[in-house]
Amino acid sequence: MESDGEEIGRENGKAQSSDNSSNDGSICGFDSLHRLLHASLNPQVFQEVNRLILGLNCGRAVEPIYLPEPAKALSSKHDFDLQAFCFNADKELLRESRMVRVGLIQNSIALPTTAPFGDQKRAIFQKLRPIIDAAGAAGVNILCLQEAWTMPFAFCTREKRWCEFAEPVDGESTLFLQDLAKKYNMVIISPILERDVKHGETLWNTAVLIGNHGNVIGKHRKNHIPRVGDFNESTYYMEGNTGHPVFETAYGKIAVNICYGRHHPLNWLAFGLNGAEIVFNPSATVGELSEPMWPIEARNAAIANSYFVGSVNRVGTEIFPNPFTSGDGKPQHADFGHFYGSSHFSAPDASCTPSLSRYKDGLIISDMDLNLCRQLKDKWGFRMTARYELYTELLAKYVKPDFEPQVISDPLLHK
Amino acid sequence: MESDGEEIGRENGKAQSSDNSSNDGSICGFDSLHRLLHASLNPQVFQEVNRLILGLNCGRAVEPIYLPEPAKALSSKHDFDLQAFCFNADKELLRESRMVRVGLIQNSIALPTTAPFGDQKRAIFQKLRPIIDAAGAAGVNILCLQEAWTMPFAFCTREKRWCEFAEPVDGESTLFLQDLAKKYNMVIISPILERDVKHGETLWNTAVLIGNHGNVIGKHRKNHIPRVGDFNESTYYMEGNTGHPVFETAYGKIAVNICYGRHHPLNWLAFGLNGAEIVFNPSATVGELSEPMWPIEARNAAIANSYFVGSVNRVGTEIFPNPFTSGDGKPQHADFGHFYGSSHFSAPDASCTPSLSRYKDGLIISDMDLNLCRQLKDKWGFRMTARYELYTELLAKYVKPDFEPQVISDPLLHK
Repeated sequence: MESDGEEIGRENGKAQSSDNSSNDGSICGFDSLHRLLHASLNPQVFQEVNRLILGLNCGRAVEPIYLPEPAKALSSKHDFDLQAFCFNADKELLRESRMVRVGLIQNSIALPTTAPFGDQKRAIFQKLRPIIDAAGAAGVNILCLQEAWTMPFAFCTREKRWCEFAEPVDGESTLFLQDLAKKYNMVIISPILERDVKHGETLWNTAVLIGNHGNVIGKHRKNHIPRVGDFNESTYYMEGNTGHPVFETAYGKIAVNICYGRHHPLNWLAFGLNGAEIVFNPSATVGELSEPMWPIEARNAAIANSYFVGSVNRVGTEIFPNPFTSGDGKPQHADFGHFYGSSHFSAPDASCTPSLSRYKDGLIISDMDLNLCRQLKDKWGFRMTARYELYTELLAKYVKPDFEPQVISDPLLHK
Repeated sequence: MESDGEEIGRENGKAQSSDNSSNDGSICGFDSLHRLLHASLNPQVFQEVNRLILGLNCGRAVEPIYLPEPAKALSSKHDFDLQAFCFNADKELLRESRMVRVGLIQNSIALPTTAPFGDQKRAIFQKLRPIIDAAGAAGVNILCLQEAWTMPFAFCTREKRWCEFAEPVDGESTLFLQDLAKKYNMVIISPILERDVKHGETLWNTAVLIGNHGNVIGKHRKNHIPRVGDFNESTYYMEGNTGHPVFETAYGKIAVNICYGRHHPLNWLAFGLNGAEIVFNPSATVGELSEPMWPIEARNAAIANSYFVGSVNRVGTEIFPNPFTSGDGKPQHADFGHFYGSSHFSAPDASCTPSLSRYKDGLIISDMDLNLCRQLKDKWGFRMTARYELYTELLAKYVKPDFEPQVISDPLLHK
């Protein structure tokens, strides 16, 4: 075990009191659960808690890894959290290991939401460039950005002017990332608000897949659109029409389950049935609503589907020009709540990495041997024991308006 | 908040060094994660950790509740862990609250596996009676026992003589529980090894549903059979043929997802589609294999399906007369590993209770307002946004031998 990764985690990981601390649903403004426990528990107890919370006895220990100096220097200079780990797998006799290095970037917006839109977008590009450079310097093979990364998450406002941030798949943000993908020989997943000009200016919530040669491999549109809390996204775009594609890249088979899709086990399943080895979940979600669900759903998906999951959530509190209500009877207000970051990886063996900061921009990197996916399929046999025929039949009945649930009533119920 | 429930938890909850502590996959033999953190963290940090680990900011605080003296006296006299909590829901204007009191019992076997089978079974009955009496004294409405509760979990041995423990649905164990169900006006879920005499002595892994008048309402047979670790259950019985029934009882709509079925999100889903408000997961699982997965899967199911989950796992290490190997290249041995107990409840709002001991017999009780299920459906809308049509179509294709996954290959893949 190398100590540098651990150090990297710590040196950038001091709890930030931050402007947001009064509004994030937490009591003491801690930086991450892992760091809070690390600082509060004696080493033996910490090890035991970690065994259960990070899943370190089902899987192997997740080890911090060494990153090259230029990556660490960028993290210090631009003040973003940088952490790096490694998931291991068994050595196989008939297959070489397939180790890939994967990165996730979380960030707050760069300018107030009152700034001119063009300036806001360019400032985010400028902010992201050194973090992407760090990923490049660290030799990341596949990099995923957060949901709608080019803009504030303005869907809480229900104002249509934010639609201006939408871009076609070959728009400004894709051009920006294509250069970097080529430069660093890196696959980049770029989740944006998409403007589909060929279909009458339809908007979608879309992930653009950029190959390691800078080419656009394809896109995936968010399948499940929330109607909860301030997530008024159904005001802006409709359910995606791209199915559940798995993208075969130079570094493995990957898929993208965008944000609210993580609450739908069938969505996770479908990417699994199509052969995904890593599924990314670029998100934007806030503390009061979802923080305790955040690690549960990703880890469950990784376990149930025998693949890796990379979970990305934006950070910070975004203040909008015009106040809005939240449908909870409370007074109008101008922010969406605190996006709690906490980006992390989950593995098919039930282990997971610690999370990035709840407050700071960050890059989390993990090495993962994709062979682990098939090893877990062979070990647990979930695909083979799943009896999909049963569920095909049940769902075919369920989707009909005259569906009758299978209920056995106690005949003595009303005695 | 009443303090008695908390006290109950504590007074029976001292960490047991126990005979099993060297063989349970843990380092320091702690009694439960919740108690370990409670003893190790300062109150403010404990509160924050609880917020994330027990989901106390998505849901409401899970409060300890007061239990009557006779229940507590039985717990002291017979030395079993007793804990009790309450999940709350919003008051509704058009519906009365539907509070039910639910109990889960975990236990080790009562005699060595070398004792005569009849004695072993009777000794378990004797051991369980005061725990069921305590549930009765506490006013429990629905009680669930652990998987194959009448016998040691002998499937690791692959010896057929253990089949003798199998009983028809109207057998000895059902008769034993029918009396108690009637006496305490309690629904009891009794998971047994079933002998189906009418179908040529077929064995099943079955939950018998006993109504609060002592009548048998019906049965459900385990849908998914493991082939992992020492779980050689596929040697003994086949995949269940009872679908995904939901039992409408005097106290709500309940279903049973037996053991390994918890690894299958579709199994959880099917009980949800059929209208379950509480799904029980009677299990037998050991530390090395599954402990970090244990809270993840149940909580994910509760969140994704907007119902309560009651998770039951047996406790202790069972030593068998004849050694067996585990297919891991290691020497033969005579035990299955440590069944780590840790029975607990999960709620649809992402909250959960602390768990029972990892070492001791126990009864965990929770009050739950079943109105919370619909409240969460209204809040999150997972059923409405699930797009089941997509998955019906996908699964119909997947189950065909000529299924082709939806894969988009980078055209520059081999350049």
